[in-house]
Amino acid sequence: MTELAQGLRLRDDFPGVGNWHYLDSAATAQKPNAVIDAIARAYGPDYATVHRGVYERSANMTLAYEAARRKVADFIGAASDGEIVYVRGATEGINLVAQSWAGTQLKAGDRILLSVLEHHSNIVPWQIVAEKIGAHIDVVPLTADGKIDLDAMRGMITPQHRMVALAHVSNVLGSVLDVRRAADIAHMVGAKILIDGCQAVPRLAVDVQALDCDFYVFSAHKLYGPTGIGVLWGRKELLDAMPPYQGGGSMIDKVTFEKTTYAPAPTRFEAGTPHITGVVGLSAAIDYVQGIGLDAIHAHECALVGKARAALESLNSVRLFGPEDSAGILSFEVEGVHPHDVGTILDETGVAIRAGHHCAQPLMRHLGVEATARASFGIYSDDSDVDALVLGLERVRKIFG
Amino acid sequence: MTELAQGLRLRDDFPGVGNWHYLDSAATAQKPNAVIDAIARAYGPDYATVHRGVYERSANMTLAYEAARRKVADFIGAASDGEIVYVRGATEGINLVAQSWAGTQLKAGDRILLSVLEHHSNIVPWQIVAEKIGAHIDVVPLTADGKIDLDAMRGMITPQHRMVALAHVSNVLGSVLDVRRAADIAHMVGAKILIDGCQAVPRLAVDVQALDCDFYVFSAHKLYGPTGIGVLWGRKELLDAMPPYQGGGSMIDKVTFEKTTYAPAPTRFEAGTPHITGVVGLSAAIDYVQGIGLDAIHAHECALVGKARAALESLNSVRLFGPEDSAGILSFEVEGVHPHDVGTILDETGVAIRAGHHCAQPLMRHLGVEATARASFGIYSDDSDVDALVLGLERVRKIFG
Repeated sequence: MTELAQGLRLRDDFPGVGNWHYLDSAATAQKPNAVIDAIARAYGPDYATVHRGVYERSANMTLAYEAARRKVADFIGAASDGEIVYVRGATEGINLVAQSWAGTQLKAGDRILLSVLEHHSNIVPWQIVAEKIGAHIDVVPLTADGKIDLDAMRGMITPQHRMVALAHVSNVLGSVLDVRRAADIAHMVGAKILIDGCQAVPRLAVDVQALDCDFYVFSAHKLYGPTGIGVLWGRKELLDAMPPYQGGGSMIDKVTFEKTTYAPAPTRFEAGTPHITGVVGLSAAIDYVQGIGLDAIHAHECALVGKARAALESLNSVRLFGPEDSAGILSFEVEGVHPHDVGTILDETGVAIRAGHHCAQPLMRHLGVEATARASFGIYSDDSDVDALVLGLERVRKIFG
Repeated sequence: MTELAQGLRLRDDFPGVGNWHYLDSAATAQKPNAVIDAIARAYGPDYATVHRGVYERSANMTLAYEAARRKVADFIGAASDGEIVYVRGATEGINLVAQSWAGTQLKAGDRILLSVLEHHSNIVPWQIVAEKIGAHIDVVPLTADGKIDLDAMRGMITPQHRMVALAHVSNVLGSVLDVRRAADIAHMVGAKILIDGCQAVPRLAVDVQALDCDFYVFSAHKLYGPTGIGVLWGRKELLDAMPPYQGGGSMIDKVTFEKTTYAPAPTRFEAGTPHITGVVGLSAAIDYVQGIGLDAIHAHECALVGKARAALESLNSVRLFGPEDSAGILSFEVEGVHPHDVGTILDETGVAIRAGHHCAQPLMRHLGVEATARASFGIYSDDSDVDALVLGLERVRKIFG
């Protein structure tokens, strides 16, 4: 067996995988035992609140919680842990920036630039704030192979554009954005740029300073970590100038009924008891992923996508979407068969894919479909998953013959 | 040994308790194995996303997720599961109502009624929205024994008051509000009433319809459940009339760049991949608590508070705050000793209390102190905890002689 055929040989680390052909990692990733065990310990013998207790166990949990913040900062190349805001997930991170940055910085007539392939979470928050303010949204088109067209973006952008928000990796097509070039174009007119890194952080090494973006968001549950926790990274001077998003405990300096003053960022944006065990689990997930190495993970997923593309192209009735060099994600349709039926039949053969609009309805309209079938890979995926997918699709063709 | 002396005999269920005298349950509760195991299963062999998968395991997780919503509805006496919104915690629930209800329903000159004993999470969100709108905040005083003074409230409230927001149980004093009477007073002038139930839900049987309130919020982590998840209950007709709070996946009906339409409540308020395992853990926590029964829990905690009050009163240098009939929570100070020093010395004897302003600075000013020491009980607490607290306080007195 070649190294490729063996994959990363991590299946045994994941109690949710086993012999299942789980090809829905772009929706949410399975969790390694290292993460599950860290969470169980954090809810068990280590459990205590953070930041407030005068007893030792709470002090220890606070240390773990803040050490995780430094780990996240290192993981994505932030200048300091003061730039790391814990949020529920990428969706909340984008909403926070839309409300607290755009909601206070933009005025009527200003413009926001998105792209055709954005996830709803990187569209709707901007629509909500644009409607409130009287700002406008423009949409960057895609290249023929399904990437955000940066040449077109360069031609469209104007000094009225104050915010650009783009996906680092498309959750439908796997297209990888040249973030640095997009940031340069945005900065050329003085716009800020937010990058939705949900699908990138589990698949590529990310360095926010090298990418030169202004905000970056991702969710832990797609990075082999817990649900209910994610990260907003922002340049310190931008975070410092933003008003609070939610009010509550911990985010204040001093509260009186006459006047309340707020803590500095990032604390200002973390109202209420945080998702303590979520942070502990995220920290364990980063350790796990770094133990393998993102370059190895990226190579592994590219190899699987390459094999899958070749195999599916050889099936006459399958149409592939997205670029050749997509990162870990592959959308397709089987001629004459609704993607949901494809998914259901594959499920009967132990192959889990996703079928639907993938929270990207504008992209579906652009592709001229209601839905696609999507196979997405993770670090536990291997050749057996691709083989099972192909066998399953042959069965689909037989049934719908 | 009497039944009281034995307590509920649940310590062995809690890996975070053991022989520790954990008296900080009002900050966050320890978790029973039943909850920890449910979370581990949900991250392991049962793990999948909800609402979107076409494969069986995702369908099963969706069933569990929605069954939990019905369980929460039953647990607090909601009319239907359509009134249950999953949020990060009580803090987010209050912010959601402040922004989406008050932010759209109130106009300049309208008034919001709070009380002196509110937690910052039930003050700051109202200050943020009041400042934005030009609304005013009034503050209901307390009775001499530290309860919200409903006679005073009745005299203060006017038709300009559109929202009343009060704690069901004070997190500092343990004072229990007569919610039904407060709701009647609020409704007399047509105001809505939101109840912060964080400290009530783990200690008292709650029936939101019998209480006749309009919104009710609580956090799972204080109810022996996971961090990062909580509940906003609202009357269906109020939720239905409220605009979305955050935009993203799942909360939409149809997205185009021209116009996006939203899903009905509660889905409208749940943008993004939810805290799936948080919901599973909350469900297990409710099962666990219901297996014991809230009447038994309340009686148990009242007995412990009674014993603790009597014991602390007999120590000459200790001053108690709050009413005789407080629910599970007891604030005090040791004459001439800073509460943090009290907490630190107690920690050395294996007793964990909280010392500080408890996110209730206005109440601290009302009490004329910078901080208090606070002991709070849970279902695993027993007489040995009270005995250890008293021994520890005698040591404090010796050290500070």
